[in-house]
Amino acid sequence: MAFEERVKELAGDVIPPDERAAERARERHLALAKPPGSLGAIEDLGAKLAAVSGKVPPPVPGDAAVVVCAGDHGVLERGVSPWPREVTAAMVANFCGDGAAVNAIAKSVGARVSVLDVGVATDLPRHPRLRTARVRPGTDDLSRKPAMNREEAARALMSGAGTAEELIGSGVDLLVTGDMGIGNTTPAAALVSAFTGRPPQETTGRGTGINDETLSLKRGVVEEALALHGPDPDDPLGVLAALGGLEHAAIAGVILAGAAAGVPVVLDGVISNSAALVAQGLAPDSTGYLFAGHLSAEPGAAVALEHLGLRPLLDLGLRLGEGTGGLLAVPLLQAAARVLGEMALLEDLDLG
Amino acid sequence: MAFEERVKELAGDVIPPDERAAERARERHLALAKPPGSLGAIEDLGAKLAAVSGKVPPPVPGDAAVVVCAGDHGVLERGVSPWPREVTAAMVANFCGDGAAVNAIAKSVGARVSVLDVGVATDLPRHPRLRTARVRPGTDDLSRKPAMNREEAARALMSGAGTAEELIGSGVDLLVTGDMGIGNTTPAAALVSAFTGRPPQETTGRGTGINDETLSLKRGVVEEALALHGPDPDDPLGVLAALGGLEHAAIAGVILAGAAAGVPVVLDGVISNSAALVAQGLAPDSTGYLFAGHLSAEPGAAVALEHLGLRPLLDLGLRLGEGTGGLLAVPLLQAAARVLGEMALLEDLDLG
Repeated sequence: MAFEERVKELAGDVIPPDERAAERARERHLALAKPPGSLGAIEDLGAKLAAVSGKVPPPVPGDAAVVVCAGDHGVLERGVSPWPREVTAAMVANFCGDGAAVNAIAKSVGARVSVLDVGVATDLPRHPRLRTARVRPGTDDLSRKPAMNREEAARALMSGAGTAEELIGSGVDLLVTGDMGIGNTTPAAALVSAFTGRPPQETTGRGTGINDETLSLKRGVVEEALALHGPDPDDPLGVLAALGGLEHAAIAGVILAGAAAGVPVVLDGVISNSAALVAQGLAPDSTGYLFAGHLSAEPGAAVALEHLGLRPLLDLGLRLGEGTGGLLAVPLLQAAARVLGEMALLEDLDLG
Repeated sequence: MAFEERVKELAGDVIPPDERAAERARERHLALAKPPGSLGAIEDLGAKLAAVSGKVPPPVPGDAAVVVCAGDHGVLERGVSPWPREVTAAMVANFCGDGAAVNAIAKSVGARVSVLDVGVATDLPRHPRLRTARVRPGTDDLSRKPAMNREEAARALMSGAGTAEELIGSGVDLLVTGDMGIGNTTPAAALVSAFTGRPPQETTGRGTGINDETLSLKRGVVEEALALHGPDPDDPLGVLAALGGLEHAAIAGVILAGAAAGVPVVLDGVISNSAALVAQGLAPDSTGYLFAGHLSAEPGAAVALEHLGLRPLLDLGLRLGEGTGGLLAVPLLQAAARVLGEMALLEDLDLG
């Protein structure tokens, strides 16, 4: 039970964000040279960054990194996705070769790309950007048995946490969560249903783009999995092991490590949202360090974000994953911090 | 009528964007290493940038500038805003001194700030960042007489166009429109009603934050102005002269000059949206070069954007103006262009 103990310890390191700093940021916003409240969600964002850092103004996060966590899924055997399993490894290679959407967008916003293989089923060549910590070569089919055991789930989670800690140690001050794993919206839907109590009809969507027939089959698979395991949301690691993916576990680890270190974490789409529910179960205060980068087109995303109490910053109909939607929100966080730090006060205006 | 002729000439220089390039961009998106359509609005953005530039992939706009157009308003005498007129000049000085929200956000996204005084009523010291082209010291009260005459409206428009042309000449490849002018949501509401035919109840809002009583008075003022002038949307310059502000005119000029030069123009909130209706009236193809940076909280914004056929990129409850919401969308345009230029093709993935 070594890894499960370490997860508990990490979750225990997450302290509540500094609400007094958030209050001071809101007061400062009222004094800045603009009509009160006129920067809308950017003001809320600034206050939350103040709470995360404990500072007013909050430091401008200038060294962002996306952690793309990759794994494969036994449930793919049930036909929930039209893409073959080998695409997971091929896309990991593409991340290393700078050819994916996440690479283009990371360059555009000035973020690093880190790739973590916690459970890809296909062999991969070594690459400096790729951290290999393969817990097992993909999960089992969650509709027939637990996707993994508790120790495996805990190991994958701690592997994500370790990657985040290493990045923070090297200067990263803003983490973005990303994912790759053919079939991974099925475990995401199961996790969202398990933690929110909402039925699979409301949490299961078309993922990368499936037809009506496959969608109906996919919902049935999620229903079967929930009926088989009867997940208990008060045992988040148990839910994760029964229903999750290895990359979902790793993302929960990135979140907990970021929160424990007082580093803001921007969530990408539904995979990250479902992993954040695991993190919330383990450490309820972790949501205070989270920013919903965007609202994924996948229906489980809105359900999860409501449960997390997070309002998405962008709504662009994205459903790609990889961290793309989280990265696109990074400039908004940077601007929100700068506004608090650089604007003059209303009382300093020269009215002649 | 010299300036009115020059406006017509400029409007005539706006040619339709290259729809074949947009089509090629959409085809390229289908071939990139991701599920088709999975980048949602970012794909539409890339296609529109291709149409604007005529190139696939479109060049990444790396030298953005916001043009903050400033003017004062005779209608302020009617009590439509709680802020005194002198705030316009004080904020222009603040833009020059790097202390406003637009400065902080421009720095954050790497954009230049250019300030254009086309009609501030208070004297201002010279500053290298400030271009002074004051057509008159503020407009007349639109609810009692025309805000300005046609020649003044045309001069203010050409002054915005000249500023945009100068910036483009110095390397700027992305324009953002911004505004400053105490009282300027009242003429914006009147313009939106005049061009869309929608009643003042649907186009007039709380601006920088007014109470119910002032809102009711403001709607009445817009109604009076529309009844007095009976604006004809087929005479856009006449509508602008009767109901607009000098900064609205200048922004219409920035839009037309950008469109004529094939440079993308990102709109800020309701002032820019209402100016875009003027530009659309003068040159219907100009909307093909426009990007709606965000949806302002001011109700006329949604009405105007619907009429322009533009979908806002951000929805953050902003109602500050200055160009802030337009600037926040700049990283999305840059990312959209990079995605088209830098991603590998699906057929190049190595599936083992």
